Amino acid sequence: MTKLTQSKRSLVDLALEELGQRLTSGIWAVGSRIPTEPELAEQLGISRNTVREAVRVLLYAGLLEVRQGDGTYVRAITSPAEAMRSISRASLREQLEVRAVLEESTARLAALRADEQDIAQIERCLAVRGEQQQYQNADDFIARDLDFHLAIADACGNAALAELYRYFSRTVQLGIQFSIQDEALPDPDLASHQAIVTAIRNGDAAAAARAAAAVTGPLLQALDTLLPPSAG
Amino acid sequence: MTKLTQSKRSLVDLALEELGQRLTSGIWAVGSRIPTEPELAEQLGISRNTVREAVRVLLYAGLLEVRQGDGTYVRAITSPAEAMRSISRASLREQLEVRAVLEESTARLAALRADEQDIAQIERCLAVRGEQQQYQNADDFIARDLDFHLAIADACGNAALAELYRYFSRTVQLGIQFSIQDEALPDPDLASHQAIVTAIRNGDAAAAARAAAAVTGPLLQALDTLLPPSAG
Repeated sequence: MTKLTQSKRSLVDLALEELGQRLTSGIWAVGSRIPTEPELAEQLGISRNTVREAVRVLLYAGLLEVRQGDGTYVRAITSPAEAMRSISRASLREQLEVRAVLEESTARLAALRADEQDIAQIERCLAVRGEQQQYQNADDFIARDLDFHLAIADACGNAALAELYRYFSRTVQLGIQFSIQDEALPDPDLASHQAIVTAIRNGDAAAAARAAAAVTGPLLQALDTLLPPSAG
Repeated sequence: MTKLTQSKRSLVDLALEELGQRLTSGIWAVGSRIPTEPELAEQLGISRNTVREAVRVLLYAGLLEVRQGDGTYVRAITSPAEAMRSISRASLREQLEVRAVLEESTARLAALRADEQDIAQIERCLAVRGEQQQYQNADDFIARDLDFHLAIADACGNAALAELYRYFSRTVQLGIQFSIQDEALPDPDLASHQAIVTAIRNGDAAAAARAAAAVTGPLLQALDTLLPPSAG
């Protein structure tokens, strides 16, 4: 790598730091339009190319957005990626507990809001899932199990909560597969999953939350044994 | 903007799309090392500079990570920013409900896990918060109220859940201020907040969750009146 490239890379990083600070300090508020490229280049004493690269990074990270024919606006001042980095530094036990919290909440809300079509879809996913013993391939079982829980999340009447569950369930699943590998985890059986569906069908929110907790509880306990507990 | 810059910008975007696809399709698995810059430049038929810019964007977005002296590795295949973009497209009502779910869960877990120091900090934050009527400036009140809820989140013994609450509470607060502006929202009073603290002090998880729900419930109901309900 040439010296020139090295120093160019650092300039973009410095520009990113500078722009990031304007966001977190509140100098640039959410919903406000940021200065144009030439203005920023002038203010920071750097080239327009460097400004453009830094802005591209912030656009992709979801902190800025371009409104066509208008300018570049502040979408968020806290980076979702930064929040997720912090979350991914948390222990697997903590991440699994977040997933458990989201499974309880989506089951509870699905019991209040799922319509006949939602419930049919949840039951279809459970029938396809079946029991783990039927599977040759663990990955296939995990995918079908996830489909079931995602069907519940999609029936909870809250797209933000469903999306959060979608993100977390994938992340946690990969973490579990990576950390545990061949260790045996308890396999929540079909009956315990059926109890969630029954509660949702009965519109019993409290029972749905309890049934979801009964599925994740043994997994959390098993992790406490298999993995060292987190500090603090 | 010169034509040259324009076309350079597009090349990075195309490279980003190409690399993004290798992540989402599973060609590059989480934890695996991606090819070096020269290898990628060769594979994609683009310059090393373009590769470097695209990789920088993915590093900042939290999808890749550099391990010093080793190489660049896949951290995540789903972009947290992408998940958060979907979440931010959800209605404010849905986002507020997610915040409510997280407040209930953190209060419940804090009742099980908060130590004397955590509880003292929560009580200190509540004393500083006081009642809204004491404040000249609404922003000051909102900030002190948030401090109280963050103190509970920090006492729940789960750093991932606390970070998720931190991110959501800020996002939702901005959304509320932006959407409602001068409309009157119910102000949950000191007594309803005190009930959360009492339940946490008593180690009563169910009561803590109920008390937290009693604080957010009226806000959700008010939003249903002030804002059009979400479709679906």
